[in-house]
Amino acid sequence: MEINKNLFLVNAAGRKVPEYVNGIRQTPYAGVGVHLPSGQKYGPPVASCVNYPADGNKLLPDLGTALLKAGLRDGVVISTHHHFRNGDLIAQQIFDFAHAMGFKNLVWAPSASFDCHKSLIPYLEDGTIHHIEGSMNGPLGIFTSQGKMQGMGVLRSHGGRYQAIQDGELRIDIAVIAAPAADAFGNATGDRGQAACGLLGFALADSRYATAVVVITDNLVPFPCVPWQIQGNDVDFVVVQQQIGIAEKIVSGTTEITKSPDRLYIAELTARFCDEAGIVKDGFSFQSGSGGTSLAVTHYLAGIMRRKQVKARFVRGGSTKYLVQMLEEGLTDYILDGQTFDMEGVRSMRENERHVNTSPFTSYNYHGKGNFSSMLDLAILGATEVDLNFNANVATHSDGLLLHGIGGWQNCLFAKCVILPVPLFRDRIPVIKDEVTTLCGPGELIDVVITERGIAINPLRHDLIDRLKNSKLPLRSIQVLKAEADALCGVPEKPCFTDRAVAVVKWVDGSTIDTIWQIEQQ
Amino acid sequence: MEINKNLFLVNAAGRKVPEYVNGIRQTPYAGVGVHLPSGQKYGPPVASCVNYPADGNKLLPDLGTALLKAGLRDGVVISTHHHFRNGDLIAQQIFDFAHAMGFKNLVWAPSASFDCHKSLIPYLEDGTIHHIEGSMNGPLGIFTSQGKMQGMGVLRSHGGRYQAIQDGELRIDIAVIAAPAADAFGNATGDRGQAACGLLGFALADSRYATAVVVITDNLVPFPCVPWQIQGNDVDFVVVQQQIGIAEKIVSGTTEITKSPDRLYIAELTARFCDEAGIVKDGFSFQSGSGGTSLAVTHYLAGIMRRKQVKARFVRGGSTKYLVQMLEEGLTDYILDGQTFDMEGVRSMRENERHVNTSPFTSYNYHGKGNFSSMLDLAILGATEVDLNFNANVATHSDGLLLHGIGGWQNCLFAKCVILPVPLFRDRIPVIKDEVTTLCGPGELIDVVITERGIAINPLRHDLIDRLKNSKLPLRSIQVLKAEADALCGVPEKPCFTDRAVAVVKWVDGSTIDTIWQIEQQ
Repeated sequence: MEINKNLFLVNAAGRKVPEYVNGIRQTPYAGVGVHLPSGQKYGPPVASCVNYPADGNKLLPDLGTALLKAGLRDGVVISTHHHFRNGDLIAQQIFDFAHAMGFKNLVWAPSASFDCHKSLIPYLEDGTIHHIEGSMNGPLGIFTSQGKMQGMGVLRSHGGRYQAIQDGELRIDIAVIAAPAADAFGNATGDRGQAACGLLGFALADSRYATAVVVITDNLVPFPCVPWQIQGNDVDFVVVQQQIGIAEKIVSGTTEITKSPDRLYIAELTARFCDEAGIVKDGFSFQSGSGGTSLAVTHYLAGIMRRKQVKARFVRGGSTKYLVQMLEEGLTDYILDGQTFDMEGVRSMRENERHVNTSPFTSYNYHGKGNFSSMLDLAILGATEVDLNFNANVATHSDGLLLHGIGGWQNCLFAKCVILPVPLFRDRIPVIKDEVTTLCGPGELIDVVITERGIAINPLRHDLIDRLKNSKLPLRSIQVLKAEADALCGVPEKPCFTDRAVAVVKWVDGSTIDTIWQIEQQ
Repeated sequence: MEINKNLFLVNAAGRKVPEYVNGIRQTPYAGVGVHLPSGQKYGPPVASCVNYPADGNKLLPDLGTALLKAGLRDGVVISTHHHFRNGDLIAQQIFDFAHAMGFKNLVWAPSASFDCHKSLIPYLEDGTIHHIEGSMNGPLGIFTSQGKMQGMGVLRSHGGRYQAIQDGELRIDIAVIAAPAADAFGNATGDRGQAACGLLGFALADSRYATAVVVITDNLVPFPCVPWQIQGNDVDFVVVQQQIGIAEKIVSGTTEITKSPDRLYIAELTARFCDEAGIVKDGFSFQSGSGGTSLAVTHYLAGIMRRKQVKARFVRGGSTKYLVQMLEEGLTDYILDGQTFDMEGVRSMRENERHVNTSPFTSYNYHGKGNFSSMLDLAILGATEVDLNFNANVATHSDGLLLHGIGGWQNCLFAKCVILPVPLFRDRIPVIKDEVTTLCGPGELIDVVITERGIAINPLRHDLIDRLKNSKLPLRSIQVLKAEADALCGVPEKPCFTDRAVAVVKWVDGSTIDTIWQIEQQ
């Protein structure tokens, strides 16, 4: 029986989602904590020392040789990590080689993509790459939204990516792991070398579960390369080349606190809210991003902590000099870091045993025996849109275009208090909608929306409402905030979509929470 | 069709091995590097955060509650680690509880057993424990040799245990991991606390692959417990109790260099041999055990290194104060440590980033993409018997009794030069035999036998013979050494066995290399 691969279902969030994605049957989103996995974790093929050099020397002359030995052929799934961010040089090299060799229908499974990867668009156009499982940022997102990608894109959170690889939903044939330091056996670390990026946690799942693993480095060190963030016992081949990333784009150094008075005010409101809600107390924990507003929240929180003489047990990063300063000042016992954003973060991780490197396995994987994100007292997150039910969007903009990956955003929604500090409007487009363009996170997990014109607490959080009842903070209903923005900006027209699904958004448990639709071209 | 489970095959080493062990079909040993695995690694059941407390608190009131919640029932496989050595209190507690609850036919899968575990013999007798997969040391070995264990024992090397768990040959239902420090989420470390034992590497496979994982500690610390040698994301339940091990038996402090003049002479010969063979040079690596003779070899090697101003790249432990001193003195860049034997080892591992904790996965697993043991320039190992073909035995004595586990011994045979410094006889029993009682390691992997009356180089090692051709060291053939011992002691009678197999010895690739036979009772 031929299966009808154009069927759509309506999931528990009321969203229309495809029954099949790239020929694989999907589990539609069933609600928070409803879907329970069955079956066993994926087991990659059993290896044997018989097939590896006894002296531990796995060096090959170049990446192309390694890719061929790793089994490069039509249709394979190739993964890369995004610790080099906009300075990545490896994805391009991989697909340049694959294209030159004439391979087709490859799947690229990056842990995230960046603007620099727009140069892969020709390979998406000519069929070298069939589709992307990962994030489709900026130009790749627009390309996807325009319906130009051959297969369907799959967006996953960092934790969802680990889950999918662990559970065998995303089977990686060849993982290419760029490493700022490695030995010839394949032990690798990110915390030192000219391309130092801190840690390599986003490549952990790839190293453990891919059929073939290639480590590529510009900094070969004698065995043993320690700390072995990636273990050579999982690695097939090692390649050395002159440059693996553009250092100044790996760690930009421009991650600074916002200077915008509005954003600073939102950040200050957020910190005050946390204080009044009783969150800022000895032993608490929080995670805040590396955007200008988030960093400002961290700055204000640190101020409150100093004044109240409060010490956090741990803060989660994306680390920057601001978190490092908190650690060194004694405002927190630990940084549990998933990604380092500046050289101070890299230095601290290398030197300070209390600056601990983590991975999506420890921090985010929903199909583990717990993870760190639900233990957080506070998560400060962003959003492109929020709706009246506190549902939020981080992937598409209000014009319907896919522009961002999900990162750890979905995973952090399990923190005890989730706050979205967002401007009421951006470029005269209101952020609060009747309904989000794309559902990335269910409103029941989002507790507070903080704008420059007021704070809306999710009505489900009676406890927070109760604790803030005598507050002088500008508490409003989300409906009032929306009305205010609409009055100022008008309600923009909804984007026009075709009925073609171009990508899906996965929930943390592997189910399909929403669909990205092809944008109607004018 | 009823399968005949009493069949025996003759393997490639000419040894008679059972076709089935405890109902499971075996792969007979096919030679070094011959058997190639097929299939996938074992995948334990997929977990979900839905089933774990969001606040990360996995504490249960006591071990019994944890065992029941972990699924304790008739026939399950329960594992423990041996980092507490003769100070272990946990295995006893587990089986006391299981016995009190009336459970039967359990399998105990320790990473090793010690004399203290003789107290489990009543549970082997009454059917609480069906058999042991691990090591059967001392009293448990004698019990096994006497044919009193209900099922068949399975002896594996440390690497073979990791391989068997990874490959799904040994499926652990419940792993109980005693931890000198842990948090309520299950992150655990061995390098601090009143029961500090250094590392927990022998429990790594258990934590990753067991269906249910219980961490038990006498030292609960606030989350996060770092370094997380065991990751809480793999752990189901955490139990706190007053004492988990007898500290003075965990780290005995009696691991000292031999004072026997004969053994010291053997050790000195060994070190001189290594020097003349050109092994002791800048950047070399070695592994030596913690027995008195091995420590003496380390001592003499260190002397040569000082004199020649040679620095090792890494030494492998079992670490003791002697290795720590070498590290701190700058005689080696790294200690890659699998087990700490004294408090200096524990301190060094905790404080010195160049004292790296390893696991059987990194060091020994033959079904990985290489491992560290084949990269060693030199391994100094023991043996109860060696035969004229350099085959060696570490499990049984010449009287046929099973008395020792294999430890990392088989795994270390893959080092570039394997030397057995052994006395020519022990208690007037010659060590060199026509044929070993039990084959644990094939002679082709054993390069040199060094006794107080001469050194025998394996004729296969033309290179070594060539390098030593002008040496003044007492080089002899192994036949000459044997004749000398036999002349002094006489050839003892062979032990008498029944035709009942009581245990098997696995090779590093999971195949069956030899059988332990029931001893004929007088």
